[in-house]
Amino acid sequence: MPEIRQNIITGEWVVISTERAKRPSQFARPLPDASAIPVHDSNCPFCPGNEALSPGDILRHPLSGTWEQRIISNKFPALTNVGSAQRTINGIYRSMEATGAHEVLIEHPRHDLILNKMSIHEISDIFRMYRDRYRQIRHQQYIESIIIFRNHGLRAGASLVHPHSQIVATPVTPFQVRMRMELAIRYYDDHGECLFCRTLHDELVDGRRIITDTEHFTAFIPYAALSPFHIWIFPKRHVSSFDDINSNEMSDIAVNLKATLGRLYTALGNPDYNFTIRSSPVRDSRSEYFHWYLAIVPRLNTAAGFELGSGMFISSALPEESAAFLRSVEIEV
Amino acid sequence: MPEIRQNIITGEWVVISTERAKRPSQFARPLPDASAIPVHDSNCPFCPGNEALSPGDILRHPLSGTWEQRIISNKFPALTNVGSAQRTINGIYRSMEATGAHEVLIEHPRHDLILNKMSIHEISDIFRMYRDRYRQIRHQQYIESIIIFRNHGLRAGASLVHPHSQIVATPVTPFQVRMRMELAIRYYDDHGECLFCRTLHDELVDGRRIITDTEHFTAFIPYAALSPFHIWIFPKRHVSSFDDINSNEMSDIAVNLKATLGRLYTALGNPDYNFTIRSSPVRDSRSEYFHWYLAIVPRLNTAAGFELGSGMFISSALPEESAAFLRSVEIEV
Repeated sequence: MPEIRQNIITGEWVVISTERAKRPSQFARPLPDASAIPVHDSNCPFCPGNEALSPGDILRHPLSGTWEQRIISNKFPALTNVGSAQRTINGIYRSMEATGAHEVLIEHPRHDLILNKMSIHEISDIFRMYRDRYRQIRHQQYIESIIIFRNHGLRAGASLVHPHSQIVATPVTPFQVRMRMELAIRYYDDHGECLFCRTLHDELVDGRRIITDTEHFTAFIPYAALSPFHIWIFPKRHVSSFDDINSNEMSDIAVNLKATLGRLYTALGNPDYNFTIRSSPVRDSRSEYFHWYLAIVPRLNTAAGFELGSGMFISSALPEESAAFLRSVEIEV
Repeated sequence: MPEIRQNIITGEWVVISTERAKRPSQFARPLPDASAIPVHDSNCPFCPGNEALSPGDILRHPLSGTWEQRIISNKFPALTNVGSAQRTINGIYRSMEATGAHEVLIEHPRHDLILNKMSIHEISDIFRMYRDRYRQIRHQQYIESIIIFRNHGLRAGASLVHPHSQIVATPVTPFQVRMRMELAIRYYDDHGECLFCRTLHDELVDGRRIITDTEHFTAFIPYAALSPFHIWIFPKRHVSSFDDINSNEMSDIAVNLKATLGRLYTALGNPDYNFTIRSSPVRDSRSEYFHWYLAIVPRLNTAAGFELGSGMFISSALPEESAAFLRSVEIEV
């Protein structure tokens, strides 16, 4: 008998369809030929030697010499730091100037190196760059929300192969984020504890949906995962804003993420995915009720009319089975 | 200077990115070769002669003789009418039995006939089937919400070519639907009028985003369209539940939808799209504050990490330009 589960962090319901259920291995595709992508591409704006093709460095590591990571402005920024956050309300029409930021972190000099093949040290440095830039942007005027995300593969919306992630800062709190804050506040009021801390505790006790448990982070498939192999990585320490991540945590999230993405890579054949860091709005960054986390969404199926028309999902994967499958594979290092 | 607009019906913000703006014609692809799809496919479970390959008729038109439309149960239903709506709450884990309905409307005997090429009469009959079945399902026990939708093309999640749409009934009100009801109620409280009636009035006065205006319906691109060529078709009469559509309206929505989809077909080269009918929850079907409508979402771009991580959108199309482009093309009949 199929079951509907509610994701109490997002509020949304998902139908776990036993009639449509697939075995976890049915989501896999063959591993691609890694040698098909060159180490360096002379046409790639992110490759070393082509720095003049893109806007100048906003932040780089190390500060001098050959770069290992660099942050630049997006060449076609959706938001820039000109203008104010002045709103115009004309009856039902509401608009504002699009002030903010839209930047790209080039994660590695190598064109072909996908994230889970980088070293722990390199991945940790990427998180340090995220944190350092987050701390700078949050002090820019008019910023309400900072979203860090990564698109891997065509189905995830990546237009360039070279490993990179993006940072967007907006002068509004997105409606979806505001709704999730409200759900978190309501849980805190009703139970006197952080919903995310409670979820992490209960998932570790249950164990069936855990993928990777390291010193400071736990990766697991949510009980009501909205799509197959959807993964959350929660920090064990209660912190609401991502930029309060400390040095030990930056090392450990690299260990955790490398293992988790490595399992996805091996089990599903390098799936296209997005990841996104969900952090509290910048003006509400020390709350007891919100807890930052990283969400990984493999793009294995297409949201169709039902999902668009309701916000509900039908999933053909049982979270407990998907997690067991990911735990069972060897990690390629 | 880019602009952020708020869609006050969905609550969400969209960045209208002038840096990334495309001319409307840049979203087009060449029209496909219509002769590539056969009139009848002996392997298609929806083609006449293959009725035994699918579950029996739930509703058919006409009642006897050769069918013109038929509704069957989905062969792999996500929800069925067994079980109750009993909820189980175990700490943070919430689930319920997946009672409901999941049905398919086969829209036409012809395998290759896409919706906008059907006659007004045939399209009107499809809406009569939707209405008649909606009225039956709403009286089924435990039903809270009925979602009618259509997937056209691979990018929209359609797995079969034969023209069909789907009806899903759920024992919960989806979280997204509940949030939109709350926004509509708040607007009604603050302004003493229906937000949708007001939007329709103001759009008709402004005129720049109108695509097709017929006797009982208006098709337009929302001021804060979340994606390029997103279209809403609003009934002019204030009715909150779709199944209160009357005979004149069933004829007229066929005229409007055929013209609107015809313009999309010609202008963008038969784009993949979803449409969905948004109706009030069945227990709240006579409200002053909600107004049913049909939403068409062409699948022209990929939601990536930013959209998944915030619920906000970046659109590279200006609604006023997209609408002018659609108005400018000849409709193929």
